[in-house]
Amino acid sequence: MQNFTFVNPTKIIFGKAVVAELGPAAAAAGKKALFVYGGGSIKKNGVHDVLTGALRENGVEIVEHPGVKPNPVLSHVKAGIGKARSAGCDVVVAAGGGSVIDEAKSIAAGVKYGGDVWDFFCGKAEIREALPLFTALTLPATGSEMNSGCVVTNEATAQKFSAHGAALFPRVSALDPETTLTLPRAQVANGAVDSIAHIIEGYFTTTDRDAGVTDEIVHALARSVVASTLRILKDPSDYGARASMMWSATLALNGLPTCGYGGMNFINHAIEHALSAIYDIAHGAGLAIVMPAWFRYHLETSGPARLDKFGAAVFGTKDAEGTIKAFEDFFRKAGAPVRLSEAKIPAADIPKIAANAMGLIRMWGMKHEQPEIERILSNAR
Amino acid sequence: MQNFTFVNPTKIIFGKAVVAELGPAAAAAGKKALFVYGGGSIKKNGVHDVLTGALRENGVEIVEHPGVKPNPVLSHVKAGIGKARSAGCDVVVAAGGGSVIDEAKSIAAGVKYGGDVWDFFCGKAEIREALPLFTALTLPATGSEMNSGCVVTNEATAQKFSAHGAALFPRVSALDPETTLTLPRAQVANGAVDSIAHIIEGYFTTTDRDAGVTDEIVHALARSVVASTLRILKDPSDYGARASMMWSATLALNGLPTCGYGGMNFINHAIEHALSAIYDIAHGAGLAIVMPAWFRYHLETSGPARLDKFGAAVFGTKDAEGTIKAFEDFFRKAGAPVRLSEAKIPAADIPKIAANAMGLIRMWGMKHEQPEIERILSNAR
Repeated sequence: MQNFTFVNPTKIIFGKAVVAELGPAAAAAGKKALFVYGGGSIKKNGVHDVLTGALRENGVEIVEHPGVKPNPVLSHVKAGIGKARSAGCDVVVAAGGGSVIDEAKSIAAGVKYGGDVWDFFCGKAEIREALPLFTALTLPATGSEMNSGCVVTNEATAQKFSAHGAALFPRVSALDPETTLTLPRAQVANGAVDSIAHIIEGYFTTTDRDAGVTDEIVHALARSVVASTLRILKDPSDYGARASMMWSATLALNGLPTCGYGGMNFINHAIEHALSAIYDIAHGAGLAIVMPAWFRYHLETSGPARLDKFGAAVFGTKDAEGTIKAFEDFFRKAGAPVRLSEAKIPAADIPKIAANAMGLIRMWGMKHEQPEIERILSNAR
Repeated sequence: MQNFTFVNPTKIIFGKAVVAELGPAAAAAGKKALFVYGGGSIKKNGVHDVLTGALRENGVEIVEHPGVKPNPVLSHVKAGIGKARSAGCDVVVAAGGGSVIDEAKSIAAGVKYGGDVWDFFCGKAEIREALPLFTALTLPATGSEMNSGCVVTNEATAQKFSAHGAALFPRVSALDPETTLTLPRAQVANGAVDSIAHIIEGYFTTTDRDAGVTDEIVHALARSVVASTLRILKDPSDYGARASMMWSATLALNGLPTCGYGGMNFINHAIEHALSAIYDIAHGAGLAIVMPAWFRYHLETSGPARLDKFGAAVFGTKDAEGTIKAFEDFFRKAGAPVRLSEAKIPAADIPKIAANAMGLIRMWGMKHEQPEIERILSNAR
């Protein structure tokens, strides 16, 4: 078990009808909120009305910033920063999935920064402060509601990069599983795959294979995501399954499932970011394609030990090949593509995708070269 | 899954040689530290020298408050409050196990309170503020290093009661598994049993049996405690096992393993507090006696479902009776007593113990009457 630091100050309020509690919480931090959200889903599921009502009741003025895209884009982040500055917003409230929360984080940090907000993403500047952030999560997937990272795509350069800083931890995040009962099936699939991806990156890339407690936590969260997703697919109105899925997805990237791992990296995410930067496919769909391909590469280069252990604990499989097949079966059951062709991405594009991925791989300091990435991607033909 | 709130702001620094990092951390919060510890173990294992050196190097003056007892007593807490006040301490630093940290928390809150510090324990006052607290844990067991509770025994009334308040979360806790390599075997046993007790209370007393992700986390932590302890018993110098045990014990009572459970209580702890208040036996030893007795009561009154599920996941057992036996076997292997007689407590004392337990049971608002507690204890003859 390697040395580690764990700190996560975000307060989670979880369960039925908790979104309104963000009103008094945000009012304690500011008087005018930039309210960040995406398309119309929070208007359909009632979160927009509940949240704006609770904010106004507690004396918080609202400046709306709707229209966040899945894979949020830099131009829209900059528009939000401009809006927050000119209106004098002193708090940011976000309602939606990880894209909305990531854009809200970027805006919260950007408002406090004199330079170009993209500096945070390409390593030119560190995030030292941000407006206080409050979130209502409606899509369990990215874990952004309880961590200090965010991902934005620069449309001009086709770069999907991430930024991090302790100032980005949401102060309070409200997680009401009832707001997820109406999620389209494709988003259930993307959320399940994304959560699994967060859970497995550290487990499979660590060079320290004696972090027993963290291995157990990884198995626990993976078992929960798989079981919850299968229940949701069978009965979308299953509250218990929605609740377990929502909390599992949050824990999957809150720092806990990597404590004590050493030498780990986020290689599957780096490769996927290239896919969704170029093709604008859902992050979860991209990951479902990348992970089985990477597992085959991992098996060839690092041996079967981790795949054996994970599969036995999570899927009840007997060997590494069985584990990879179990992952694919689960992703397929959830409705995600597991080959490039299933997402209509031509195999001829592999060098282009790998070249794009190298940007993030270098930025994140990973020791991978382009031919290796092409080899991994060729497993996804 | 029931509604819940989760927040835990304590920063954990974990691993080899991390204790010295408390120096700059404490210096950022105060100039004069009350340094709370127990007997001589931190002098033998080097933590005393490392920590006082790091504090002084960072300009923090030290007022020593040694002599904390296992099961810390109110008179010593009051002595610490007096010492901190007269010296003008503005920060508290604790090094040791849960007893030391609990006493340090009580002092930190007591210094800021005009009345009798026991008011916090018997429900007469709420903890609103406390001196900032920094801890170096040397005994994995109670979880106090990452929560907001503390337990103190009032010797005058033979009451072992608890107090809680968000102000009691340690700011930073340093967990160096190397400081646990020299723990006596009895403390390894007590730590293992105490951790298991924290993990199982919510799982078995919840009325909500559909908190799937939390069930998985409970299984994960229990598996880790059992596996780590067996490795430690075989080879006390096994760093990986010490590390997994240390982090498991911290997670066992940091709020995570009860998220979404409803109607739960800490009945095993309430009964054990009576044992250690009257007989001054180790908390872990008392729990090893109470838990199997309570499991038999649970099986009779609530059926086999939870014992079946837990045993299958943690011990690989096939039924509830097998699970209870597996608990007993594990406690015995660790070296803990599992019957009153093994701790030389006469069965004739059962009414007296039950009467004492009723104090805490009423204080914690549990719906148990004395005859039930006697019935549970009679399973431990």
